[in-house]
Amino acid sequence: MKKKSVGKVFLIGAGPGAADLITVRGLRLLQSADCVLHDALVSPELLAEAKQAELIAVGKRCGKLSSAQHFINKQLVDAAHKFPIVVRLKGGDPMLFGRAEEEIAALEAAGIEYEIVPGVTAALAASAAMAAPLTQRGVARSVAFITPSVGESQPNNAWENQTIAADTLVFYMGRRVAAEIAQRLLGLGRAQDWPVAVIEQASWVDQRVQYTDLGSLAHITDCVTWSDAPTLIVMGEVLRQRQQSALQVEVALQRLWMA
Amino acid sequence: MKKKSVGKVFLIGAGPGAADLITVRGLRLLQSADCVLHDALVSPELLAEAKQAELIAVGKRCGKLSSAQHFINKQLVDAAHKFPIVVRLKGGDPMLFGRAEEEIAALEAAGIEYEIVPGVTAALAASAAMAAPLTQRGVARSVAFITPSVGESQPNNAWENQTIAADTLVFYMGRRVAAEIAQRLLGLGRAQDWPVAVIEQASWVDQRVQYTDLGSLAHITDCVTWSDAPTLIVMGEVLRQRQQSALQVEVALQRLWMA
Repeated sequence: MKKKSVGKVFLIGAGPGAADLITVRGLRLLQSADCVLHDALVSPELLAEAKQAELIAVGKRCGKLSSAQHFINKQLVDAAHKFPIVVRLKGGDPMLFGRAEEEIAALEAAGIEYEIVPGVTAALAASAAMAAPLTQRGVARSVAFITPSVGESQPNNAWENQTIAADTLVFYMGRRVAAEIAQRLLGLGRAQDWPVAVIEQASWVDQRVQYTDLGSLAHITDCVTWSDAPTLIVMGEVLRQRQQSALQVEVALQRLWMA
Repeated sequence: MKKKSVGKVFLIGAGPGAADLITVRGLRLLQSADCVLHDALVSPELLAEAKQAELIAVGKRCGKLSSAQHFINKQLVDAAHKFPIVVRLKGGDPMLFGRAEEEIAALEAAGIEYEIVPGVTAALAASAAMAAPLTQRGVARSVAFITPSVGESQPNNAWENQTIAADTLVFYMGRRVAAEIAQRLLGLGRAQDWPVAVIEQASWVDQRVQYTDLGSLAHITDCVTWSDAPTLIVMGEVLRQRQQSALQVEVALQRLWMA
C-alpha cells in the first residue's frame, strides 16, 4: 500500500514548551531526523537536538490561512521525497487543535508512510503549573478542551452550547476573546464567582498563572497586561482552592503596603 | 514554607503505556529516584529505568476505595521522610482522572515539597493509533474527556448533560458501561450512526482499535470480546472516515470468504 522508496514522516508532539517535556520517543526521532518541519513556537533548545537535520520553520504564529496550511502539506510531501526521516514537529500534541488531519490526508494521498507520536498538551502543563487537577473526585468528572469561535456565526454549532456543561473548561487560543467568552458563559447561567485561571507560556521559564473569576474576566476591556504568548484559560470548581489562596496572598500584600 | 530536610516528591505522568512515551524529564527523574510508588498499569520496562530505587506498587487496578487512596497518601508522605527523591509514577497524566488532588493535599499538609511532571494522556495515544485527530477544522472544535457515572444518582450533575454537546467525546474507564452510555446518548438525540471507536491498550504492543457506531454500541449485551485492558471509547464525526474505511475492509473480507 505505502511506498518504501520515499522517506517516512513522523508527526511528533513537541509538548507544551519546555524542551524536556517532549516524549523520549519524540526526542530520539528528532535526533535521527534528516529534515524537521517545525512550528514557530517550538523551543530552539529542542530544535538543537536535530543535529543533522535541515530545519524548516512552517509555523503560522498568528492567523490560520488555509493557503498556508496547503503550503505546509506540500512542503511535507516534498521533504519525504528528498529525505529518509522527516519529522513534523508540532507544539503540544499533533492531534489536538493541530490541523493534523490536513497533513495526514496529504501524506496518504501521496502514498507516504507516516507515524504519529503523541505529546503533552498545554492544558496538562497548565494543570501541573497550578497544582490543580482538571478533574477531581466529587467535583469534576469531565473536562472540555475548546477553541472558541466567538463572533463567528455558527447557529447550529455554537461553542458555548457545546461545552457550557462540562465541569472544567479549557480554552485554547482564547486570549483575544476572553471577555466575550466570559460574558457568554455568564449569560448561560454560570456564576460570577466561577474560578478562572489564565496561564501564559505553561512550562516555559516565563510561565505565568493569574487567578480571577468569571465576573472579572467579563470586564476585561483589553488584554494589554497579557503578553502575546500562548495562553490558556481554564475555568472550573477544581481551581477554587488555588484561586482563594492566590486572592488571600494578594490581600495580605496590599495590607503590608498600606501598613 | 516547605521543609528541605525531607525528600522531594515528583508526581510524574508515565504516559499512555509504551515506555518511551514518558517525557524526557519524567525519565530522568525516574532514573535518579530513590523510591518509586507506581500504579499497577505502569510498564515494567519503565520501572526497570529506576535502577537504584525501591519500588512500591500502589496501584488500584480495579475499584477506587478511598481507604486505598488514603493509604497511598500515607505511603507517599512516609517515603518523603525516608528518601531524598521520591517519584509517584501514575499512568497517563497525573492531573487527569488520577486523583492527584488527594496526594497533593496530603503532601501540602505534611509540608513536603513536590513537583508535577505532566504526561501524555491515553486519549492522545488513542487518537494517534487511529490517525484521527480529536479536533478538526470545520468538524470539531471541542473535545470532552469524561469518566461516566452511569447508574449513579446525580440529578444535578448528570454526566450526559455535562458532555452530550461536545463535538468529540472520550470516555475513560467506560468499558463496563459502554452500552448504557450509548443508550443514554441515543436518548438525548445523538444519531444511530454516530461513529464510535473502542481503543484497548493504546500505545502498548497489543493495542487494538475497533470501529462501530452508537446504535451498535447500545446493543452490546456483554463485553466478553473485550479484554480487561484499559479501554477508551471515543465518539465523534472526527472518526467518520476511519470508521467507513474499516467497515469497507470488513465487507471486502466477508466477500472474499464467501467467494
